Amino acid sequence: MTATAVKRDQQASRSGAREQLLAATSALLTESDTLDISLNEISARAQLNHGLVKYYFGNKEGLLLALLDRDAGTALTALETLVGMSVPPLRKLELHIRGVINTYFRHPYINRLINYLQGSSDTNAVHLAKVFITPLLRFQHLMIEEAVAAGAIHPVKPEFFYFSIIGACDFPFNARRTLPHAFGMVAIGDEVKNSYADHVVRMVMGGIARN
Amino acid sequence: MTATAVKRDQQASRSGAREQLLAATSALLTESDTLDISLNEISARAQLNHGLVKYYFGNKEGLLLALLDRDAGTALTALETLVGMSVPPLRKLELHIRGVINTYFRHPYINRLINYLQGSSDTNAVHLAKVFITPLLRFQHLMIEEAVAAGAIHPVKPEFFYFSIIGACDFPFNARRTLPHAFGMVAIGDEVKNSYADHVVRMVMGGIARN
Repeated sequence: MTATAVKRDQQASRSGAREQLLAATSALLTESDTLDISLNEISARAQLNHGLVKYYFGNKEGLLLALLDRDAGTALTALETLVGMSVPPLRKLELHIRGVINTYFRHPYINRLINYLQGSSDTNAVHLAKVFITPLLRFQHLMIEEAVAAGAIHPVKPEFFYFSIIGACDFPFNARRTLPHAFGMVAIGDEVKNSYADHVVRMVMGGIARN
Repeated sequence: MTATAVKRDQQASRSGAREQLLAATSALLTESDTLDISLNEISARAQLNHGLVKYYFGNKEGLLLALLDRDAGTALTALETLVGMSVPPLRKLELHIRGVINTYFRHPYINRLINYLQGSSDTNAVHLAKVFITPLLRFQHLMIEEAVAAGAIHPVKPEFFYFSIIGACDFPFNARRTLPHAFGMVAIGDEVKNSYADHVVRMVMGGIARN
């Protein structure tokens, strides 16, 4: 590294270069609806030197993994807090569903990233299962057990609960490209998102709650 | 084309070369869980000359569009028949949900293809909305109207019904890569698929049916 590059890097570090690169990647992925974004686009968007991606993340895959860790980490921390809260079990499940929808509303690329990174190497697949899917499944399992024990819901297979909730919550945001041509809307705004959350909550609760 | 190539093509035509290429593409997409398959792999799998892809489909995108037209066409024809049948409205919705799950069970790449092809050009996006999404939405709308008119379900927004059902039915098959590491199963077989369909039907019916 030249003295100038080192100086630039030090400056960038002070202003959170790593976080800026993650934020730029997140913004580009949200806009582009694919994973085809280049390191040049990312560094240009972050207004940072291209070499910093390599410095902080090694390569694009490392950057995408770090972004997933960031977003999934935030969502899982919030979920862990919810699981530990003293809230009636049905209300807890409802808050969870609304939380999942809010996560995909903010970061519509999460499942696309998971699917891509799982296929890129076995190490990644094991890592993602361990840090993201298994904890999410475990938290959902705990909420289900609590609700069954309280007599609030019928027993439900945790993996089926996971598939149906994650699928239903993710789909409108992941399949956004279909919106303008098939649904006459450019994007899903706050109001539609909240109204869709009401719909999913009604469906899930209707399917498992004891009357 | 040389005389040999023409002769080969004529022979291939007689044995349904076009259909063989589509079947080979479908098999490869189902196995690979990505869209990264080459024309060489496809022609090798079909045991046909590489040039036939160009002859029948122009390029890989044309081949993928034709595959989607084939699979979506089959599913929509079956749905149209169901919509016209004299079956109680709740049972009709149930059969629809089971049909959607069977479609993604057989062709787990459908939504991946739609998402990819919609982004590849505006012409494709308009075409897919017209031949696949809009008809599916219309058929679902008709079944919902019929069920509401019969007093069997509460009113539900057709686009919300679409998002939640397509998302829930598609997710376990589209996210298959997560199965071995997070769920301890290699693939979803017939029994799990049918049991998952029971779960989704219970959820949807519980959410919208009038008691």
